[in-house]
Formats: sequence, structure tokens, C-alpha cells
Amino acid sequence: MKLGSVRIGGLASYGIVEGEFLIDIGAVLQERFPDLKAVIAADAMEAVKLAAPQAPRIPLQDLTFAPVIGNAGKIFCVGHNYESHRQETGRAKTSYPSIFVRFADSQMGHGEPIIMPKVSTMLDYEGELAVVIGKAGKNIAQADALQHVAGYSCYNDASVRDWQWHTTQFTPGKNFAGTGAFGPWLVTPDEIPDPATLSVTTRLNGTVVQSQPTADMIFPIPQLIAYISTFTHLAPGDVIVTGTPGGVGAKRQPPLWLKPGDTVEVDIPGIGLLINPVHAEA
Amino acid sequence: MKLGSVRIGGLASYGIVEGEFLIDIGAVLQERFPDLKAVIAADAMEAVKLAAPQAPRIPLQDLTFAPVIGNAGKIFCVGHNYESHRQETGRAKTSYPSIFVRFADSQMGHGEPIIMPKVSTMLDYEGELAVVIGKAGKNIAQADALQHVAGYSCYNDASVRDWQWHTTQFTPGKNFAGTGAFGPWLVTPDEIPDPATLSVTTRLNGTVVQSQPTADMIFPIPQLIAYISTFTHLAPGDVIVTGTPGGVGAKRQPPLWLKPGDTVEVDIPGIGLLINPVHAEA
Repeated sequence: MKLGSVRIGGLASYGIVEGEFLIDIGAVLQERFPDLKAVIAADAMEAVKLAAPQAPRIPLQDLTFAPVIGNAGKIFCVGHNYESHRQETGRAKTSYPSIFVRFADSQMGHGEPIIMPKVSTMLDYEGELAVVIGKAGKNIAQADALQHVAGYSCYNDASVRDWQWHTTQFTPGKNFAGTGAFGPWLVTPDEIPDPATLSVTTRLNGTVVQSQPTADMIFPIPQLIAYISTFTHLAPGDVIVTGTPGGVGAKRQPPLWLKPGDTVEVDIPGIGLLINPVHAEA
Repeated sequence: MKLGSVRIGGLASYGIVEGEFLIDIGAVLQERFPDLKAVIAADAMEAVKLAAPQAPRIPLQDLTFAPVIGNAGKIFCVGHNYESHRQETGRAKTSYPSIFVRFADSQMGHGEPIIMPKVSTMLDYEGELAVVIGKAGKNIAQADALQHVAGYSCYNDASVRDWQWHTTQFTPGKNFAGTGAFGPWLVTPDEIPDPATLSVTTRLNGTVVQSQPTADMIFPIPQLIAYISTFTHLAPGDVIVTGTPGGVGAKRQPPLWLKPGDTVEVDIPGIGLLINPVHAEA
């Protein structure tokens, strides 16, 4: 099942994506479950399926996508989780995943613009696989980790590199509004029995700039969930953005920065195709 | 005015601290303002004062303190913001403040235990001045920054050092539950016209281990607010934990780790005295 968070006529809703339509589950269930995070927290996938026959079918062209979980409580991003990216950044090998934080208000949906802030021209793409937590947990064992997953999506962890590099801590470069593209939708785990069999491809204006199988992650998803849940509680709707493959713009010669008018696509076959244009900050 | 978040008979409330009593404003205003963050967001200090004559007076011994803003949306911690601490850590000088993130569920109030997690014995103290944002803003000028402050408090940014040092990113070591001590209360800015005239002293079992004037901050509070509000939106109830002076346990020879049975005090005259015992994780 593909579940999208959307705006229809300016109002927030969510539903099941089927072909060129959204089955507007929010129109039926929004009093019980105001948003997709509430659906996930209530483990209400059966209620969603039961509501489908009564729900309006909205052509995708008549709605806009919002970030899959716009109100995520915690968003963990993983640094240097593919060897190709670790090598291009010159980072040391580590025995643990590198975890930094993105706030939810930096996110936007499929089709919405990535915003180049006025204070920087060093805007970069980072195509990634995102994991959305379904079942809460602390000290989750690797063997149980995938049972805590509500689904998968594409993410563009767009990065303002000069602000990321002001100090050792990445926070500033990862939190400008309009830099965390998250979508187009969530794909539930029944369709993705093993997230290590996917591949992440990023295209800039149609040209492939990153492409790698998720099997190449240094710390696979079960290990990420186990590690993160050791130092903090994971709650429904929390997001783990699992790291980007080699090929980022910052490490090219010359660097390949995003500029207004560009289009970036993050393509994960089996999950979806996340497309965002680049705009200058107004 | 001193404003505390508390639990009375297990129920959450908030109020004005006067001497040995809390004036339980929550008992009067909780339907309009469920918590201190809501009071701040509504800029409702006048309503708080008007409610005081009708509010019950609760002896402090009959309540427990909760973290001042237990539901803070964003908590920014500043690394190496005193030269004495930068030097002891061996960190390079930077032109910008180092910003990492603590999640709100890692926090606890005055009197509650700092928890040494089972997975580490490298638990350390960090006494700090905390700033709570009152008025929302983006791209706040330094000259206007203090107008965005709702008040000040003490903070113990207790740190699980081995987890902090797993990689370059500090997130894991700063987010274990029971490590962010925040209190005892918020002091409104009418009592603190200039936060650069304060001093932060940390005592471990009665012995001074850190002590420094806030005038020694490398990046003073107006500069922190201006910098942070350039890369993200600041909202009422957001917290900036402004950095710790030299003297942390990790950089002593031999290291001075916290252990169960210890008591840590963060003393900021004019603000308050934050006291927390150290317990082992149950």
C-alpha cells in the first residue's frame, strides 16, 4: 500500500495512492486520525483499508503532496553510510553510525521546491532511502527491528554545505526550510520484505549523479534502528534517513551546486520517484 | 518572576515560585494554557499575574519539579562556547557557534535523577545557562535578539561521553533519557536585563568543578539567537543551551565520571540552583 500526505484545495489530508488517483482516506477518517502519523501510531492500516470504498477518489493532478510525515517528532539522518560517500568526503571509518538531526519544519513534499537560501550558494543534493517508524521502542534488537517499521519512502537530504561545515556539527546545514524533500509517499513493508534489496538513484536535470544499491549501506537498517533506539526512544512517525551514496555535488571537481531552475529526482524503484525543482529563496 | 513547571500529586501544573511556595497558576488557567510553553506562546504573563490571587499556594516540599519546558520543540545546544572548555577539548577555533540537538524527552526537572545508562560509565556533567525563546522569529538581528527571550534557567547538559565520541556528531551522547536537567524554574527577563552579567558554577558533591562568568561566552546570547534563527525558525518554548565552561570531568586527569550516589548542582546566582542526584539506570 502507498500512503500519501497531501493538500487538496489547500486542506491537509492523506490517503492511498492507486495509479493516477489518491483515495482520500482523510475525508472519512480525519476525525479519528488527523494525519498519517496518527494512523501509524494507532496501527490503523485495517481501518484505512475499510474506509477506502467510501472515500473520494482524487486525481493526483488535483492535489499537491506534503512531506510524508510533516510532523515527525524525531528525524535522524545518517552520515557517510555508503563507503563511496565516506571515501569522497575523506571521513574516517567509524564503528558506529554517524547520527545528526533534521527538524520537521525543514521538510517539504514531492513537487514542492528545494529552496536555495539567500545566505548560501552551496546547495547540494543527497538522495536517500527513508524509514518511518511504526511501532515505538527502546533497545530494539536488530532481529526485531524491521517489525518496528511502518514503511519506506524517498528523501532528498538537501544540504547547505558551507553552513554544514561551519563547525564539526552538521545541524545548521541540514535545517534550512525547504531542504528536506520527503516523498512522494510511504510504501508499507508488505511490499518491501527486505529494504536491503533496493537501489537509490539521484538525477540532476535528467543526468544520473548518484546510484547505488541499499545493500551497500555500511550500517544496514536493522543496525541503525538498534543503535538509535539504544540512546533514545523511537516513536511512531519518527524517521531515519539512511544516508546518501557517493556522488554528491560538493565533492566533484569542480563542485556541482544546485541552482534555481534545476530539477532533482530521487528514484527508488519499488518505492517511488521524488521530484523537486530548485527555487531561490523569495 | 520565577515560573516553574511542576507535578502536584502526580498531575502536571505550573506556576509562580515565591519563596517556599508555588502559586499554582495551572489550577486557574490550565484550560486556556495547558502548560508553560502555551503561556509563553500566548505571551500571557499578564494573565498569569492576574490569576495569582485566586491560585492555591502549594509548599514546594509538596510538589516535584518537571523540566521547565518539557515539550520544547527544538533544543539547541552550543558546543565549546567558553575558551576554557574549547582549550581543554582541543577543538579548533571556529568563526561560528557549534550547534547540536537534544530532544525534549531526554530532559528532567530539578531534583529528578540524572540517569547513568547501562551501556556507559562515562557520564559527565555540563553546567550551563539556558535561554527560552518567547517570541517566534527568523533572521533575528542581534540587536533585537533579547526581545525574543522569555527567560533564563539553569541546565545540566549531562553527556554520555563514549556515545558522544562514537563519530564526529554528538547526537547519541546527548540524548539518553534522564540526562538533560532543566530548572529549577524560568526567570523572566525583567529580572535579568543582561544575561552576560551572570556566572555559572557547577558543584559535584559540594566541590566546585566549573565556574565562569557568562561574559566569557565566545558567542554571546544575541549572536547565538541571530545565528540559529538564520538557518531555522525559532518558536516559543524553543531552548538554547548556551555552552559549558571548562572543567568537565572527561578532560581531567584522571577523568572524573559521575557515578550513582553523586549530587550535581548548577548554580547561577539570580537564576536559581539546579540540583540533581545521579542514579544508575533501573
